[in-house]
Formats: sequence, C-alpha cells, structure tokens
Amino acid sequence: MPKVAIVGHGQTKFSNEDSKIESVLLRATKNLFDSTSNLSQKDIDSVLVSTNNNSKYLSAILSEMAGIQPKIAHSIESLCNSGTNSIVSAYSYIASGLAEVVLVSGGERYDSPGQILEWDNLRGEFKHPIFWASIFSKSYKQKYSVTDEDLAFVSVKNHSHSKNNPFAFSQKDISIEDVLNSKKLTDDLRILDCSRPCTGGSSILIASEKMCKNFTDHPIWITGIGQKTTSASFTKNQTFDNMESTRQATKNAFQMSKKSQKDIDVMELHDAFSVCEPMALDSMGFTKQGEGIKLVKESYLTENSKINPRGGLLGTGHPLGATGISQTIEIVQQLQSKAGKRQVDKANVGLIHNMSAAATSSTVLVLEN
Amino acid sequence: MPKVAIVGHGQTKFSNEDSKIESVLLRATKNLFDSTSNLSQKDIDSVLVSTNNNSKYLSAILSEMAGIQPKIAHSIESLCNSGTNSIVSAYSYIASGLAEVVLVSGGERYDSPGQILEWDNLRGEFKHPIFWASIFSKSYKQKYSVTDEDLAFVSVKNHSHSKNNPFAFSQKDISIEDVLNSKKLTDDLRILDCSRPCTGGSSILIASEKMCKNFTDHPIWITGIGQKTTSASFTKNQTFDNMESTRQATKNAFQMSKKSQKDIDVMELHDAFSVCEPMALDSMGFTKQGEGIKLVKESYLTENSKINPRGGLLGTGHPLGATGISQTIEIVQQLQSKAGKRQVDKANVGLIHNMSAAATSSTVLVLEN
Repeated sequence: MPKVAIVGHGQTKFSNEDSKIESVLLRATKNLFDSTSNLSQKDIDSVLVSTNNNSKYLSAILSEMAGIQPKIAHSIESLCNSGTNSIVSAYSYIASGLAEVVLVSGGERYDSPGQILEWDNLRGEFKHPIFWASIFSKSYKQKYSVTDEDLAFVSVKNHSHSKNNPFAFSQKDISIEDVLNSKKLTDDLRILDCSRPCTGGSSILIASEKMCKNFTDHPIWITGIGQKTTSASFTKNQTFDNMESTRQATKNAFQMSKKSQKDIDVMELHDAFSVCEPMALDSMGFTKQGEGIKLVKESYLTENSKINPRGGLLGTGHPLGATGISQTIEIVQQLQSKAGKRQVDKANVGLIHNMSAAATSSTVLVLEN
Repeated sequence: MPKVAIVGHGQTKFSNEDSKIESVLLRATKNLFDSTSNLSQKDIDSVLVSTNNNSKYLSAILSEMAGIQPKIAHSIESLCNSGTNSIVSAYSYIASGLAEVVLVSGGERYDSPGQILEWDNLRGEFKHPIFWASIFSKSYKQKYSVTDEDLAFVSVKNHSHSKNNPFAFSQKDISIEDVLNSKKLTDDLRILDCSRPCTGGSSILIASEKMCKNFTDHPIWITGIGQKTTSASFTKNQTFDNMESTRQATKNAFQMSKKSQKDIDVMELHDAFSVCEPMALDSMGFTKQGEGIKLVKESYLTENSKINPRGGLLGTGHPLGATGISQTIEIVQQLQSKAGKRQVDKANVGLIHNMSAAATSSTVLVLEN
C-alpha cells in the first residue's frame, strides 16, 4: 500500500460571522498556503471541498480563486462527517496513483442546511439533532447510572481546552453549574451540552510519499481508515446507548493500522453533544460499555488530556463540513509537537472519530509519526 | 495498477415527472439489482451518490432504502460532470484497496438547482447556461464558417439515435426544419439546440478484478481517466470556440490508457447544446479545429454512428447528476454488444466525455473490453 501523508493545514477562527461560503473556504486555504513551505498552486492536482452548503461547483470556484487548475475537483457531502469522507477520498486518489497532492477544504456557515434532518420523516416534527441527542442522553443516563453532572463534566473539560485553541469559538472556562443552569432545551439536554453551529473553514494538504518532502520535514502518515454507515434513520438504530457504526469503523481502522486502543496517545472524538464523548469511548473499546465518563474525568484531572485537546465540538464549535478536517489538523499538530498549550506528552499515534446523524455513519482515522 | 471494471447498471426513463430524488435513485438502483446476477446487498462496500439536489445524506438514505450498509458513503457534486467524478472516485477507492465493490447512483429532478450558475457573478443577469452556449455558437459559427443548419444537424442526428433508446426523453425523429423553426432563445440558439433538463437516474456497479467475475462474464475495464478544471467562471476562458479542459482531459486519458483517437470505436460526448458536439470533437483531436461538424455528418450518413449512439444529451435529456453515468452505461452496452438497435460495429474501445459549466471542467474516460 503506498504511503500517504498530511503535509500542511490552515484554518479560520470559528465564529458566528455572516461570511459567504466561498470566502470561508478561501481564507482557510490562504492560511494553508501561508504556512506551508514551498507550496505553489501548480503542485496541487486535486481540490476536494467538504460542505453541506447548497452552493454548487465550489471546488472549481475555490480553485479559481486560489489560482489552482486541478485535475480532480468536486464537493463531498455526508452531513457532519463530510470532512473525514473528503480526507479518505484524498487518500484513495493518492494511493490509487490518480493524484500526488490533494487540497481538501471544508467550510460551513452558521446557518448550514445540514443541521436539520429533513430526510428523516420517521422523526415527525422532531427533525433537529437535539431530539436524538436527548434520547441518547436519557438512555445512557438511565442504563449506566450517569448523572446530568457527569455529562456536564464533558462540556466543562472541552471548554477548558478550547480556550487554548485560537481558532475555537469558545475562549473561556465554564463550570458544572454554568452547564446545569444553562437554558434547558429538553428534559435531558441543556444548551451548554450542545456543540454550536458556526461559521468556519479548515483546509488540509495531503501528499504521496514521493511528494511530501517538498512541503514538510515532518509528514504525518494516515495509517488507519475505518468507515461505516448503518442507516440514515435514527429509529433504525436498535439501541440508543451505543454507536454501532463507530464500533465497526474503529475495528476497521485498527485492523488497517495494526494498532489497538492501548497505542493511542491522543484523540479527537465527535462530541456534538456531551453524551457523545463517553458513548464514543465505550463504542470504540477504550472503556467497558457505560464507563466512558470515568475516562473523561481521569483525562481532565491529569492535566494532560488525551481526549479532545482541541476543545472538541463543544468548545470549538461545529461548522459541519469543516469539523472532521479541524479534528484531523489537531492530531497532526499534536503528533508534530506543535500544539502549544494543548500539547499532550509523547504523542506518536493519534485517532480521529467523526460521525453523522445520531452515529448512523462514522469515520475513524489513525495517524502516525 | 490494479484493474477496475464496470460489472452492472440500471437506469430510469428520463422524463419530466415530479418524483422525489430518493425515489429516482432507488429505482435506478433497483433496476441495477434486477439485472445483475448474484448481486447481494452485502457485496457492496461503498455507495456514492452523484447529484446537484440540495437534499443531504442521500448516500446513507439510498443505502438504507436499498438494504445496504456500506463502509464509504457520500454525495459528490461538480455540476454536470458529477457522474463521471463519482465513477472516478469509485475507481480510486477500488484501486487504492479501500473498497472492492462500489455502487454509484446518479439522479436529478427536472428542477435541479445546478441549472442556474448562481456562482458566476461576472455573468451579471446572464446566469442560465443558454448564454454561454449562445456565445460558443456565435464564435464557432463565425470563426469556422459553420451555419445554423450545420448545428441543427447535430440535434437531428442525436434525436434519431435516442428514439432507439428506451430510457431517452425524446422518442421521435426531428428534421432540420424542426430545429430551425423551434423557439428562438437567443440570436444563435433555438430550443431544439438545447438538451432538456429532466428527471432521471442511473446506477452503475464497479468492482475490483478479484470480485468482478461474481457479477458478470463480460466486465468492461476502465483503462483511461483524464480530468481537468481550468476555472469556474466562463469569462476566464480565453477563447469561446474550443474546450481547453476537454483537450487536457483527453490527453491524460489517452496517456493512461495508451490509446489514441484512432483506437476509439464509439464515444459519448457532452452535447449539452448542439455546438458542443463538433467543438468537443475538435478539442479532443478527432478533427482539426473547426472541422468537427464534418465528422458529425459523416457519422450520421454511415448509419453506423460512433458519436452519441445513446442520443446524446440532446436526445436523451440531461438530468445533471445522472448524465455522466448514463453516458458510461451506453459505452458499456456498446462494448458488450448489448446496445440493440443502437449497436455500433466492432466496438472494443469506447470513450466518454462529460463536462461542466461551459467546459470549465471536463472528464474523459476510456473503457475497454
């Protein structure tokens, strides 16, 4: 299997600004160019755009604005894991020999149409993700004796991380009381348990082994890829307290990378809602079913948090098409020892978990030094 | 390079029906299952949807409706060449080893948002494709002494082919007079010079060399792939009488397949408007610049037409996300000698040309027995 590496990246600050999607994608891409040595537009032979935005032909538009004339150019959409789907496509274009250097740019506006699950008619009027998140929270709490305070802890931890991330939406600490006293959206969900839809962009540069040395002396290798879509409809899930697509994607990513849970030094998990972080830890096999919250707390107390050092979706914000790419950039920075105040000790193997729509689809990536 | 083959296909009739996009995709996919021996849902490890429709998560929705639980699942959009972009992605997933069997399903409704070029602000109010097509027609006619009658011939020929294609929108012959007397949209374009936006779906099954024998005893191999995006904006084109992205994509596809113009026995060209067919023939090097129309006429007169035997976009209709896939299915049927009344003699090597937005982006594929 040919080796494929991540060799550059750029992001915008996640915010509630009313920017055009084209501008968001271009700014993230300009930041990538500004921070990647020796990169010229002519080096890039593919441009993939990750977004839920309704605008068409965005890869060609971004290419023209950035002065690139790519071979391969299209947009990719799979709701909230569009970003990692695009990274996997970039990997496959390079591994298959069709491309040498791929720019993946993800972007979203705060008012993304991907936030409402129009397609799932079984939900009746309950098409906003807070409804599945609420059912997940109720199930998980009841089955495993987890409390509202326990779940609030996830949000507290991730906000404490995001204040060290200059691109994050939230730049301040919050307390357990802040979460518990925040606006109640349903019986089991408060607004500070929810990641915030926002405007943001993330671009990443992926290259073949042959090309990567032109751009960096510290490439980060994509060694594990796992993906699974079990359904589109929430109610097709047989249980509401674990993530089957995440379990299968993790298994496949570990199989490909010949790694296991014990090898992972740092990870970005898809905490769209606070309950998702412990559930993902359970489903990925880092903890026994129902014990994820223990690992969340241990991770926070050590001051060397290996779980969502970027601030997760809860602290950083969730611009859908950009999220999986920003998660991946965090792991790249951690493995390169360039994560600043967020740096985790001895980070050599990292993992990304990115999912869509009540974990009906999941992507897991393993990256290595 | 691992070998990748097309092993099955299914289509809906192209029409003006008011179907939901999910239904269009499912019907094309059901037809694929019905006509592909031994195919079970479990065989499929990737589902790619090609569309300009604004609905999200369509690959997961189609998968659930069709009973598939894929690894890879997302939608791909690049306006009118979304279909061939998706086929190339399927190729790369298989050639890279990430997948063995990929279902690509393209679909569109007659009211697709991909028909209006909202993004190209340089066009002012002239955002409908008929404006670029009109400028192309004027330029091509003036520079190469081509007449309205010459261009009308393209539409007459392709309508004469589509009446032998049960999936085509148009099922009847038209005359040169019909074209010239049809509604005048601009000085240089009549309505019968234009392909018709319509509702339609096309699904295709692509497999690794190892897996393909499970589904067919006559796989068709994808041996050449060329893609190029030169810009997004029409006015960035330096000339209006040839297609630079098509020229480059053709060169790359021939290079990869080690074939040349003389080897091509049958081809589907992207005749979104009548002028596009001779311009594509010129730009692809089948004719000297300005002489494409001669080849169109010769091809018609021989009664063994190697150019757009399916009926092209002019006769078959143009449901954007399905078009590139339907073009590819036609070449598969031709190479398998299963094209019925449309069958071309001795078809062993075929070519597909699919493009977007005034040929600012092009894909060229070479298929072989």
